[in-house]
Amino acid sequence: MSETVMSEERVKFVLDEPDIPTHWVNLMADLPGEAPPPLHPGTKQPAGPEDLTPIFPMGLILQEVSAEPEVEIPEPVREVYKLWRPTPLYRARRLERALDTPAHIYYKYEGGSPPGSHKPNTAVAQVYENAQAGIRKLATETGAGQWGSALAFACRLFGLECEVWMVGSSYDQKPYRRSMMEAWGATVHRSPSDVTESGRAQAEHTTGSLGIAISEAVEVAAQNPDTNYSLGSVLNHVLLHQTVIGQEALAQMAMAGEEPDVVIACVGGGSNFGGLTFPFLRRVLRGQAKTRFLAAEPAACPTLTRGVYAYDFGDTVGLTPLMPMYTLGHDFVPPPVHAGGLRYHGDSPLVCGLVKQGLVEPRAYRQNETFEAAVRFARAEGIIPAPEPAHAIRAVITEADAAREAGEERVILFGLCGHGNFDLSAYDAYLAGKLEDPEFSQADLDTALAHLPEAPALV
Amino acid sequence: MSETVMSEERVKFVLDEPDIPTHWVNLMADLPGEAPPPLHPGTKQPAGPEDLTPIFPMGLILQEVSAEPEVEIPEPVREVYKLWRPTPLYRARRLERALDTPAHIYYKYEGGSPPGSHKPNTAVAQVYENAQAGIRKLATETGAGQWGSALAFACRLFGLECEVWMVGSSYDQKPYRRSMMEAWGATVHRSPSDVTESGRAQAEHTTGSLGIAISEAVEVAAQNPDTNYSLGSVLNHVLLHQTVIGQEALAQMAMAGEEPDVVIACVGGGSNFGGLTFPFLRRVLRGQAKTRFLAAEPAACPTLTRGVYAYDFGDTVGLTPLMPMYTLGHDFVPPPVHAGGLRYHGDSPLVCGLVKQGLVEPRAYRQNETFEAAVRFARAEGIIPAPEPAHAIRAVITEADAAREAGEERVILFGLCGHGNFDLSAYDAYLAGKLEDPEFSQADLDTALAHLPEAPALV
Repeated sequence: MSETVMSEERVKFVLDEPDIPTHWVNLMADLPGEAPPPLHPGTKQPAGPEDLTPIFPMGLILQEVSAEPEVEIPEPVREVYKLWRPTPLYRARRLERALDTPAHIYYKYEGGSPPGSHKPNTAVAQVYENAQAGIRKLATETGAGQWGSALAFACRLFGLECEVWMVGSSYDQKPYRRSMMEAWGATVHRSPSDVTESGRAQAEHTTGSLGIAISEAVEVAAQNPDTNYSLGSVLNHVLLHQTVIGQEALAQMAMAGEEPDVVIACVGGGSNFGGLTFPFLRRVLRGQAKTRFLAAEPAACPTLTRGVYAYDFGDTVGLTPLMPMYTLGHDFVPPPVHAGGLRYHGDSPLVCGLVKQGLVEPRAYRQNETFEAAVRFARAEGIIPAPEPAHAIRAVITEADAAREAGEERVILFGLCGHGNFDLSAYDAYLAGKLEDPEFSQADLDTALAHLPEAPALV
Repeated sequence: MSETVMSEERVKFVLDEPDIPTHWVNLMADLPGEAPPPLHPGTKQPAGPEDLTPIFPMGLILQEVSAEPEVEIPEPVREVYKLWRPTPLYRARRLERALDTPAHIYYKYEGGSPPGSHKPNTAVAQVYENAQAGIRKLATETGAGQWGSALAFACRLFGLECEVWMVGSSYDQKPYRRSMMEAWGATVHRSPSDVTESGRAQAEHTTGSLGIAISEAVEVAAQNPDTNYSLGSVLNHVLLHQTVIGQEALAQMAMAGEEPDVVIACVGGGSNFGGLTFPFLRRVLRGQAKTRFLAAEPAACPTLTRGVYAYDFGDTVGLTPLMPMYTLGHDFVPPPVHAGGLRYHGDSPLVCGLVKQGLVEPRAYRQNETFEAAVRFARAEGIIPAPEPAHAIRAVITEADAAREAGEERVILFGLCGHGNFDLSAYDAYLAGKLEDPEFSQADLDTALAHLPEAPALV
C-alpha cells in the first residue's frame, strides 16, 4: 500500500442527462478574417454547396458552411446521445502520483460509447440528417474500423442501411471490428472489392488503402440516388458535431473549480482535437481565457510538424475538392503505425488554420514512446488507451514533467477519445519489445510534395 | 424515422461519486434458519476459518462467515471504485419499442469498468485485504479471461504481483484477454503449465480445463507464504462484494420512480446474480417488497434446473471444501458454449439455497436463442452484450412478451454484467449461421452425479 488515499478526493466529475449540450459550437463564427474556400478539383474555382449535393444531404452542407456561432442539436440526435453521453471527466490522481508531478491532470473519456470512441458523436448527427433527407443507405470507408463501426451503430438506430469498405489489411487483421459492424447489421466489404469499378481497377493492390476504400464508397454514393457518402473527420460539420465533448468538459472543469493551462488532444483528421478544444478555443478568441493548445501527431505521419500549408486533395486519387491545409501530399503513404486513425496526409482545414495562426502548437511522437506512455497510463488509471490518444498522453507526461521541474501546479486537460480493447495485439508487440518504431521516408515525402496540385498559394 | 422520440424521456439514471455504497449487503443475516456449513474434504466435518488460512487472508475469511447484515467497505476500496462506479442504470426504451411491449425494461450496466465486467468489484476488495495482510502475490485461474483481467487490474492498483493460469484453449483463442492482463503487468501461463506439479501431471490434457488451472493456482498459493489464491465467484465474500451493484440499482430505480416486478440476472458461479439481486431480496425477506427473481443459465450447463441439491466439491479434482449446492457433479464437463463464465458444475451455496427455498426461479436457455436475444438488444440499445448476460436478455424478452400478452405494464430490471467486445468471434459464428447449439450429454451427467462424494444429505 504505497499510495496515500483520501476519500474526499474527487476522481470523477459526472453530468446528468439534461446537461447534454443543446447546441454545437461553430468556431468559424469567431475566427478572424476570411477562411480560404475549398476549390473544385477540376475548375479550381471556389466549390459551392451544389458541388457536394451528389454525396451529402443539404442539412450537412449548410452546417459545413454555416456562419452562425452555434447550431442547434436536433432533438432525436440528443435522444441518441443519451445512450452514452454525458461522458465522464476524470482527475488522473493515480497518474499524477505515479509521475510525482504537481500538475493536475484531467481527462475527458469518450471510450464509453458502444463503438468505443468519440466517432458516434458525428455518426449519429450525420445519419439523422441523411434520414431526414430520405436517404436509405450510407456508404463509407474505414481503416482500423472505429469510424465504420460508429456509422454502422448510428445507421441501425435510425433504420438506414450501412455499407462499409474496410481497408484489406485491416479487414484481415481486425476481424472483431468487422464482426462488430455486422452485429449492428452493416454490410462490410474487403477493399479493394469486386462490387465497384474503383475496386476492380485496383484489384492488384490486395492489401488495399484508405484512398481506394474512399473511392469505392464515393462511387457507390454518387451512382445511387438513395445512397449518400459519410466522412468521419476533416470536414467542418464533423468537427462541429464533436464539440459536445469540449462543452461538457468546460462544465466539468468548472465543477472541479479549475481552469486548464493547457488542453491536449491527438490529431489525425482533426475531429477529436476540434471536438475537445473548440469550446475552449472560443473563450481564448473572445479574450475570456488564456490557454495553450497542443496537437499530438505521429512522427511517422507528421502533417502539422513537417507538412506544407497548401491546397491539396482530401483523398489519394483526387476526387474531392482541394482543401487549404497542412499536407504531406495526397499520395504520401505513411508507414503502418498502429494509430490508424492518425495516418492521414492532411488535416482539418480549421485545425490547420489555427496551427498556421500559432493558436495551436503541434507535437510529433514516435510509436514506441507513445506506447510507453499508454502503458504507464493503463497501469495507473486502469483504462487501456487506443493508440491514437496515446499520442496525447505522451504530450501530457512531457507537460507534467515540465511542471515538476518548474515547481508549478499546472492544470492539464486531455482527450482520451477511445479505448484500446481492439488494439491489444499492438500492446502485445510493445510489451514483447517487438513493436516497430518507423520514421517516414524523406524521399517519399519529397516526392509526394512535388505532386501537389496546381492551385493558388495560401498566405 | 419510424421512432417516436420525446426529449423528456429519461434513458439513463446517473449517480454521483458520493453515492457509491459505503457498505456491502450481507444477505446471510436475513436468511431464515441455519445454513448448512461447508465440510472439510477429508474429515467431512464442518470446515472452520483455520482450514482456509493457507490460501485466504483472515479479512476475507471473516467476511465469508460474517453474520452482520452489513459490512463496511474499506475507504481505499471505495476510492478505487470511483474509477468506474457508480455505474449507469438504463431504461431500455428502444428495446421496449422494438419488442412492442408495455413492459418497462431497465438494465444495470457493469461493462464500463476497465476490464469490461462486474468482476473488479470483488477483485479490488480481495486484493486490498491481501495487501493489508502483507501478501505480495495473488495466484488465480481464468477461463475466458474476465476474472483474470479483473484481478490483474486490481493487483496493479495496489502494487501486488499477479500470476494467472489461463485455460489452454482460451489462451490460444483469446490472445487479447491475455494481452490485457499483461498490459496491467500480470504474468499469464498457459494451463496446463510446466511450472507446477499439477500442471506437469496433466501435461497430456493440452487444451486444459478450469479444474486443472485451479489446481495450479492453489498449489502455488499453498506452497508460498507470501502468495494467496483468489476466487472470482461462488463464495459468500465474493457475492458480498458484488452487492454494490444492487444497492446502486435500488437507488436508481427509486430515481426512476418504479419498483421492479421481476429482477433477472445470469448465473454461473452466482456473483453477478447475487450482486444485483441480494439488496432487492433483502427487502422481500423483510416484507418490504414483493419481487420475482429469475436466474438464467445455459441449457448446456443446467446446474439449477437439472442438478441435484447435495454436498459436492467446488473444484474438479476435489481439493476444496464440500459445499452445499445444486451440482451437476464435480467432474461434469459442460459442452464448450461461449458463455465461459457460466460453465460451472455448481453454484454459489447462497444462491442455491434461495432456489431451494423457492425465492429464486431458475431458467435455462440454449446458446442460439441467447445470441438471437443479444443481437436484438445490440441493434436496439447499441451495447453488444457478453454471452453470459445474453442469457438474462433471453429471459427478459420472454417476460416482456408475457407482459404484452397480459396487457400489463410490468417493470423488469436485469443485470448487463459485461460487454461482448472480446466475444465477437461468437457473434460472427451466430450471424453466419454456424454457431453450435449444444445440449449436455445425459449419460455424462448421470456418470458425474454417480461420482458425488459421500456426505450428509441436505434437506
